[in-house]
Amino acid sequence: MSLNDLSSAMLPKIEEELVSVVRRASINGNEQFYSMLAYHMGWDKSAAVALGKRIRPLMVLLTTSAAGGEWERALPAAAAVELVHNFSLIHDDIQDGSDLRRGRPTVWKIWGMPQAINVGDAMFALAHSATLRLADTSSPEIAIRASRLLLFTCLELTRGQYLDMQYENRNDLTVDDYWPMVSGKTAALLAACTELGAIIAGANDTTCTAFHDFGRSLGLAFQAQDDYLGIWGDAALTGKSAESDLVTGKKSLPVLFGLTQNGLFSQRWFEGPIEPEEVHTIAKQLEVEGARQFTQETTARLTDQALNALASIKADNAGAEALEELAHQLLTRKQ
Amino acid sequence: MSLNDLSSAMLPKIEEELVSVVRRASINGNEQFYSMLAYHMGWDKSAAVALGKRIRPLMVLLTTSAAGGEWERALPAAAAVELVHNFSLIHDDIQDGSDLRRGRPTVWKIWGMPQAINVGDAMFALAHSATLRLADTSSPEIAIRASRLLLFTCLELTRGQYLDMQYENRNDLTVDDYWPMVSGKTAALLAACTELGAIIAGANDTTCTAFHDFGRSLGLAFQAQDDYLGIWGDAALTGKSAESDLVTGKKSLPVLFGLTQNGLFSQRWFEGPIEPEEVHTIAKQLEVEGARQFTQETTARLTDQALNALASIKADNAGAEALEELAHQLLTRKQ
Repeated sequence: MSLNDLSSAMLPKIEEELVSVVRRASINGNEQFYSMLAYHMGWDKSAAVALGKRIRPLMVLLTTSAAGGEWERALPAAAAVELVHNFSLIHDDIQDGSDLRRGRPTVWKIWGMPQAINVGDAMFALAHSATLRLADTSSPEIAIRASRLLLFTCLELTRGQYLDMQYENRNDLTVDDYWPMVSGKTAALLAACTELGAIIAGANDTTCTAFHDFGRSLGLAFQAQDDYLGIWGDAALTGKSAESDLVTGKKSLPVLFGLTQNGLFSQRWFEGPIEPEEVHTIAKQLEVEGARQFTQETTARLTDQALNALASIKADNAGAEALEELAHQLLTRKQ
Repeated sequence: MSLNDLSSAMLPKIEEELVSVVRRASINGNEQFYSMLAYHMGWDKSAAVALGKRIRPLMVLLTTSAAGGEWERALPAAAAVELVHNFSLIHDDIQDGSDLRRGRPTVWKIWGMPQAINVGDAMFALAHSATLRLADTSSPEIAIRASRLLLFTCLELTRGQYLDMQYENRNDLTVDDYWPMVSGKTAALLAACTELGAIIAGANDTTCTAFHDFGRSLGLAFQAQDDYLGIWGDAALTGKSAESDLVTGKKSLPVLFGLTQNGLFSQRWFEGPIEPEEVHTIAKQLEVEGARQFTQETTARLTDQALNALASIKADNAGAEALEELAHQLLTRKQ
């Protein structure tokens, strides 16, 4: 079975589990409260294309399968990671002042900042209550281990978020500062997805660690690739150049590399905001100073690390093949 | 042993457990991140009188003791409820735009709204990870039951908060709208404290329910009393009349009662914000229209309900006596 076959079987079950968890918000008849959560999840009528890709829950289920377990048992954890991801998006959008998410107005944009904080908090509570159903599908011990791991991961997320916000006001950052931030913001949750999948399959510690390493390296590679696309991707260089990371001022991997070269790029960066019409010239300058090659090499190295961790498990089955295919899809995407 | 003796033994252990949980935020050397959480908890140097009263963790431990258990085993749950309470305060202060908390600047006032949302999120994750240590002090089954209860309580908190914020823009509210809001915002967490204490003591379902009812009625009585003091308390009527609920416009129990009388109070209320110099006259008018008596009678009825629930358990021991004493202290306070 390919990734396509497996995900076709898994995605409807993931959505079913998600709905049954989030529905808890409407107990005692509070449909309006529920509707704000449902809107963010992409379940309202305006949401034909607003569903997330559900990459994280798929990674949990594929890992359980790759590690020799029944993926249906991992559905509570799959729902939990997706809800954690969505909780963090709701709060991120407030923190960043973002107006749009998946092409629609963000929760805070519609209902205001105070209500949006609260919607995120409700999503957080639902996420962690979702995990505990593992006590029914697996065992109380596995539920506790999974719950601890996911809560620790949320602490990592908040630490990454802290660094990201703190970096906005700093001019002394180097590439070394990049890794602790993206470890928390991106890699920790992907590492948790694959580790959770392995734990639920009852894998031994060596295998759990290898799956964790796979998820973590994949997350770091994903972020480095994202940062690459944020400057040299088609969207960043063409019509949407206002969305280029150079214009938004994001301290991404290539930017931090460029800043430590003390060349023309760094000089221009510190002069003030970059305008959309400068995007081509400055992206070129950054390339001349070596940032493009550095980012590509870094992504390739992290991708190798991820695939080596996966290969070390020697899980010669459909789940492992599908995981490898998913990793390739994520790391060769063009936007 | 009196409440005083028991709380003298418990409070240092509560603080120790809280510190050991919150310290997890500084793993990997992020002292600055930890320091924001520690500041809110009242552990920094400026905090001589900024510690919370730790009422909720005391209620957990006293209940465990009253229900015949060893209170030391309940310390993880005691820390968890206090951290949940503090998470909600951090986010409440942002949502309300409050500048001060326990006489000091609020987290958002010092570090800004985006960082404060994140500090609250970290506190939330720590709270729920605290609960899981019950797997070590009690059993995995009890840890899961406690964790489910506390997460469900957090969902109730967010639902109460949703209603509270939504009520700000509504002019059609009655006393009936008051109860679902305060059930979530205040009573749910106190009910969870006493129910958790009983669960950890291994009490049977009848006893757990009675303790839950005690906490819930106590929480409702506490809030009704708080609303009473917000209008007729010394602080609200004297120097600090700018803090009177009449001036802040809070839709408290006496206000909702007054609004449904369609008298002079209701007429004045809908004309626009009440000024500090009007506080005496309007508090008097509200009393004439019956709101003062109604609020006192409601508090008394809820207090009786709470004490009857406690008495029904027939726990004739020091823990139960101390719980009763604590209930009296809370409900006869003057500010």
